[in-house]
Amino acid sequence: MQARVNDLPAIAADVYARMRDRRPRVHCITNAVAQNFTPNLLLACGAIPSMTISRDEVESFAASADALLVNLGTFDVERRAASEIAIAQAAKNGKRWVLDPVFIERSPPRADYARALAKRGPSVIRMNAGEFQSLTGETAGERSVCGFAATNKLVVALTGVTDIISDGARSFRIENGHPLMAKVTAMGCAGSALLAAFLCVEDDPLIAAAAGLLVLGVAGEMAGAQARGPGSFAVNILDILHQLDASALQKHARVSS
Amino acid sequence: MQARVNDLPAIAADVYARMRDRRPRVHCITNAVAQNFTPNLLLACGAIPSMTISRDEVESFAASADALLVNLGTFDVERRAASEIAIAQAAKNGKRWVLDPVFIERSPPRADYARALAKRGPSVIRMNAGEFQSLTGETAGERSVCGFAATNKLVVALTGVTDIISDGARSFRIENGHPLMAKVTAMGCAGSALLAAFLCVEDDPLIAAAAGLLVLGVAGEMAGAQARGPGSFAVNILDILHQLDASALQKHARVSS
Amino acid sequence: MQARVNDLPAIAADVYARMRDRRPRVHCITNAVAQNFTPNLLLACGAIPSMTISRDEVESFAASADALLVNLGTFDVERRAASEIAIAQAAKNGKRWVLDPVFIERSPPRADYARALAKRGPSVIRMNAGEFQSLTGETAGERSVCGFAATNKLVVALTGVTDIISDGARSFRIENGHPLMAKVTAMGCAGSALLAAFLCVEDDPLIAAAAGLLVLGVAGEMAGAQARGPGSFAVNILDILHQLDASALQKHARVSS
Repeated sequence: MQARVNDLPAIAADVYARMRDRRPRVHCITNAVAQNFTPNLLLACGAIPSMTISRDEVESFAASADALLVNLGTFDVERRAASEIAIAQAAKNGKRWVLDPVFIERSPPRADYARALAKRGPSVIRMNAGEFQSLTGETAGERSVCGFAATNKLVVALTGVTDIISDGARSFRIENGHPLMAKVTAMGCAGSALLAAFLCVEDDPLIAAAAGLLVLGVAGEMAGAQARGPGSFAVNILDILHQLDASALQKHARVSS
Repeated sequence: MQARVNDLPAIAADVYARMRDRRPRVHCITNAVAQNFTPNLLLACGAIPSMTISRDEVESFAASADALLVNLGTFDVERRAASEIAIAQAAKNGKRWVLDPVFIERSPPRADYARALAKRGPSVIRMNAGEFQSLTGETAGERSVCGFAATNKLVVALTGVTDIISDGARSFRIENGHPLMAKVTAMGCAGSALLAAFLCVEDDPLIAAAAGLLVLGVAGEMAGAQARGPGSFAVNILDILHQLDASALQKHARVSS
Repeated sequence: MQARVNDLPAIAADVYARMRDRRPRVHCITNAVAQNFTPNLLLACGAIPSMTISRDEVESFAASADALLVNLGTFDVERRAASEIAIAQAAKNGKRWVLDPVFIERSPPRADYARALAKRGPSVIRMNAGEFQSLTGETAGERSVCGFAATNKLVVALTGVTDIISDGARSFRIENGHPLMAKVTAMGCAGSALLAAFLCVEDDPLIAAAAGLLVLGVAGEMAGAQARGPGSFAVNILDILHQLDASALQKHARVSS
């Protein structure tokens, strides 16, 4: 594992480059708030977003997508129906998906649904500590994250001051990022969409998730260093993601295992 | 009253500081257009936004919120149901709410609903002159604003070139702001959400509303002075709100009674 | 035609100036992704956007609007109903409308609906090559675009590296624009809304559409020249559209017939 930790910046740069070449289609079932920033982040990174949640056409979009994001940031009948259709399509076509159980600690029905979806085979669940606690009943930490990942045979991408990414057997810790990331709405949601894009080109979901969070964390750090506040931060991070390269990742990455 | 007029910049700085310390949760039932800018403005100012309008969970979000915004910028069955649930929750928990009757002069059913909601106990109604006229049948002016506020036992926060804030007995006039504020969609909607955040920490709703509009007006003025147009203006105002302090408020405020 | 080609920058500047004077109301039935950027672009250009798709009030908004945009970027029961009501209102009041059949190549039901709407009398259909092919069954090119426009008695505004605008008898080619325009979500959607605004003040729909795409292409080119990436590009294009004038159009325009 140690080798891979040192290698992660180079690996992430390679995954990112392959993603930009491939230009994968990522279908996003996401909340109303994230409907604009999520596709803008995917476009900036080189992926092709689609966003419909309409029952009449989500099957067709999901069928022609390379990966799927299911974000629970707005939990309603329409999005639930769209999620069911899209997840069934992904399973049928062997496409992978990311679950983002936004704010489930504020909404018991949303938390229940997140727990049900966690058993439906997402490759990655991205969440913060509060969402992890609501999903699992445990305090977020290396041990609990690894345990949940192992039990459920998926990758947990826990974001916070330190990101912890684990598939139960292996794990990464990433110290990159910037406080302004928490001051822009839908930043986490858009990050989850980026993980879905990375899953399209990297077979190992742990590497895909760690690479995605490293790219996002380094871009956030660089964007924050140049920002006057959350407005310019949101602009900067899109600009920086668009041009981020191996040398920037190598220079800024703070990864451990 | 004269004393408080001179004091408003200092009072507003204090309310803002207390709001940033408290980090209140503001649940926003708002239109589709404002779903992104509203939470970004609240986050920039230090509050915690939530935005769901789903019938299944709005009660849970409203129950754990510190204040509520009901914005009528999209008027549909779903948002009406969400508003009813959330207002009932606010009443039950003694939490305050702000009504923003966006564009009611263009939609008779929306205007009817706004008139009904005005009688349901909002602490503040924020609106412009056209919306005031549609809501009350009277031309907006100091006298009519004070009269409506007194009759309905609420605070009117009328925004325009000159903002008029009145609870019927006392009133403020604020001359801050910038023409580009009218060139960014959802600016008023987001401002109403800020008033809701201020209501969480300031008992006197007149002071909360006047402080909120002063903060917004001064930030708008500073943002406009540095902007090349509406794109950079929207970025600047978030940056400036994030760092606005007592000295900027003192320096720029133009308040009278 | 040659004369008008040389004149287009001056004509576009005149149409734009008249639009800013008139401040037309453009009602937009559009997708969730475009709900923020579309009104911001219209406001930056000097038009007055409204965005509701609520069945209860779309008739009232459409009745008081000067032009209509029907964008299919989210295709659901609610938007279909809103489109029907708004198109009927536009027909009744002699107001013109623009159809934007976003992403129909990914969704057969959306494509079917687009084909039905194309026969309902839009003044302009704005689309890219993939959407044109899905709509018409033909590869996009000068001949097929002119043929479709002539047969359907409307203006096709085909956007791409070269824009082709045709009413079947006359056509323009515009070479302006910037690759970053494809890296900001809802850019095309917002452009279609601008064409609707131009239709409010210019009787000849070919001129209105060509003028609108020229304004957008020149603004995009200027914005791209100053951008560090897609984040600052989106900010810049709003700033530039807000102040774009005849001399900039004259300087940058690359128009042929």
